[in-house]
Amino acid sequence: MTDAALLLTHLNAATLCGSVPYGLVEDAAIVVRDGRIAWIGRRADLPREHAGMKARDMGGRLVTPGLIDCHTHIVHGGDRAAEFEMRLNGASYEEVARAGGGIVSTVTATRAADEETLLRNALRRADTLIAEGVTTLEIKSGYGLDIETELRMLRVARAVGAARPVRVKTSFLGAHAVPADYRDRADTYIDEVCIPALRAAHAEGLVDAVDGFCEGIAFSPAQIARVFDVAKELALPVKLHAEQLSNLGGAAMAAGYGALSADHVEYLDEPGVAAMAEAGTVAVLLPGAFYTLRETQLPPVQTLRDRGVPIALATDANPGSSPLTSLLLAMNMGCTLFRLTPEEALRGVTANAARALGLRDVGTLAPGQRADLAVWDVEQPAELSYRIGFNPLHTRIFGGAA
Amino acid sequence: MTDAALLLTHLNAATLCGSVPYGLVEDAAIVVRDGRIAWIGRRADLPREHAGMKARDMGGRLVTPGLIDCHTHIVHGGDRAAEFEMRLNGASYEEVARAGGGIVSTVTATRAADEETLLRNALRRADTLIAEGVTTLEIKSGYGLDIETELRMLRVARAVGAARPVRVKTSFLGAHAVPADYRDRADTYIDEVCIPALRAAHAEGLVDAVDGFCEGIAFSPAQIARVFDVAKELALPVKLHAEQLSNLGGAAMAAGYGALSADHVEYLDEPGVAAMAEAGTVAVLLPGAFYTLRETQLPPVQTLRDRGVPIALATDANPGSSPLTSLLLAMNMGCTLFRLTPEEALRGVTANAARALGLRDVGTLAPGQRADLAVWDVEQPAELSYRIGFNPLHTRIFGGAA
Ligand SMILES: [Zn+2]
Ligand SMILES: [Zn+2]
Repeated sequence: MTDAALLLTHLNAATLCGSVPYGLVEDAAIVVRDGRIAWIGRRADLPREHAGMKARDMGGRLVTPGLIDCHTHIVHGGDRAAEFEMRLNGASYEEVARAGGGIVSTVTATRAADEETLLRNALRRADTLIAEGVTTLEIKSGYGLDIETELRMLRVARAVGAARPVRVKTSFLGAHAVPADYRDRADTYIDEVCIPALRAAHAEGLVDAVDGFCEGIAFSPAQIARVFDVAKELALPVKLHAEQLSNLGGAAMAAGYGALSADHVEYLDEPGVAAMAEAGTVAVLLPGAFYTLRETQLPPVQTLRDRGVPIALATDANPGSSPLTSLLLAMNMGCTLFRLTPEEALRGVTANAARALGLRDVGTLAPGQRADLAVWDVEQPAELSYRIGFNPLHTRIFGGAA
Repeated sequence: MTDAALLLTHLNAATLCGSVPYGLVEDAAIVVRDGRIAWIGRRADLPREHAGMKARDMGGRLVTPGLIDCHTHIVHGGDRAAEFEMRLNGASYEEVARAGGGIVSTVTATRAADEETLLRNALRRADTLIAEGVTTLEIKSGYGLDIETELRMLRVARAVGAARPVRVKTSFLGAHAVPADYRDRADTYIDEVCIPALRAAHAEGLVDAVDGFCEGIAFSPAQIARVFDVAKELALPVKLHAEQLSNLGGAAMAAGYGALSADHVEYLDEPGVAAMAEAGTVAVLLPGAFYTLRETQLPPVQTLRDRGVPIALATDANPGSSPLTSLLLAMNMGCTLFRLTPEEALRGVTANAARALGLRDVGTLAPGQRADLAVWDVEQPAELSYRIGFNPLHTRIFGGAA
């Protein structure tokens, strides 16, 4: 339910606009009308036309754009807790694989799960994110690896957006892994499954962007490029899991397609950064996977800064390498592990995360933007990144509705 | 409010007793009477005398002992978000110190805060822990470093236990740091402040255990020993922050006093482990501090296992080196960073955490134990450690009361 009009006062607004840190406006006021921000600025400057509105006192709290988790895999069957336990009890990768572990187990569980089950489980994860002020959520397919299940995952992703006050953007990730029945026949898989699934999903209106996993254990840049060619034909934007475990030049290849983002990028090199800068491609850092895999190769944060590549942060919520469903924790990890500043972390889950999804109407606080807001019980924006395992969300406003 | 009697059925119980993993009893039943566990076992074995009770169906969920956070500093003034931000913006330790940062800033803020303010802020942190199923909570002094404020901190710690359904155990930590006015006069501080504060706090019934910080930047083993001698005289158990940043032999010294626990212990050596094993001293691992400080020296987990030293896990919730208020996340960090097994992690926040606090009536599920229970929406115990930033708590029962 959208309040037709809303005046918020007694708040500090981190607008993420302008040149002051965080775009901070102290003692601000925000006018919301028809689900959009009609006016925002210093309360003392509130135009007379809004002055008569009934004000909602935010008690001096901090208001930020609603958070945006721009990289998740929250639709999937099963979990990998048993595998996590086996590994910690000393099982080798081979033993885990023999016990049916790894991505194969998630593919098997996802194929076996009906829409209702997938939705119920995805909603638990979505609800956790929503409880932290997330108002926009990206969800990928990629655990079906057959046409039917890839489509089912995307339908469930759409259903998450219908069931909850959150905006869902989908990414088709048919090129996530080579399924067992196509082992050593990745090109055949691309032809027989991935591209037909993409066309079918697009025809059903299920695809907002096309993603891939470019890695030795997944697909080569040339294979991904064939999928991206179809995306281009369908006028769909692309993004890519690139340079996570090694440097295959995937980010530069994706940038060549004008990719919205290249994600992970621990092993990204200087030419890759330059290509991304050129294309305006966002670097989406995923510290939850870095942490879980005990990776030691850090993403080239300083080079990204130097070249002006926008940096986003996301949970990568997935059952294998990042069973993380806290975007606030991703912010802390971004600071602690990758040495982002708290301002970069907040920008990474708002303005730059919006950009990584090709969205222009969220991620900042400015007139005309959607009124997706998070109100926090903190005194300064840095607290959002500083605390670990603490949720200071006070109020969440989605499209003007609390 | 304690229900006089309660029968829980349709649950799996991780009792942490016996030799099967997790002490797991499947399809169990638990009889609670007068705040204690009167009977626990397989539902099929429920004695006839309890069979007539009205059963509460737990829907097949997992029941564990209520969680125990055996090492926290949740009572303190201020926060260190500004310092966190300064550091990430490139400030040196000297610049941070000149800006009033470091532990000094917390001491200043704590001295300036009245009981009401300290309590309000501590309760926010306690509530976060309680929401994760924590039923016993240790709280330390140590940010007063003068007699009056050390006592105030401990009074607030007691007040947390009075204000919330959680059992609080206090530790006097006067030997936490040398305050500015005693710089280079640590021995004088021990004589003039620490020991008198301990005696005064004990006289007021505020002290359950005596703690210290044994480190180059804090106190030597000999200085701590003088405080422990007073603890011994007062018949108070001791514990110690030891071997966090270097190896001063603090753990062995503490073990010589029969210490309940030695905490941190990244730099603990083999003789230290042997001394702890001999004394039955628990090793309390604090992965939140390890993570925040980007420490690389791992605690000697395998040696601790080999020598049979019980391992506990705690948040170390504190504003400087571990602003962590999620014990579930400490479990995940214990597994991910320290390679504990999920069973060790659960034992570390239940049975062994109880031991680190000298408690025998909590931390396991057995007849006669307090009915402090956590009911979880998970299928297997490993999920509690596997997920990151996800709270599957379904119901929390404290002393028999939900
Ligand atoms: Zn991913
Ligand atoms: Zn501590």
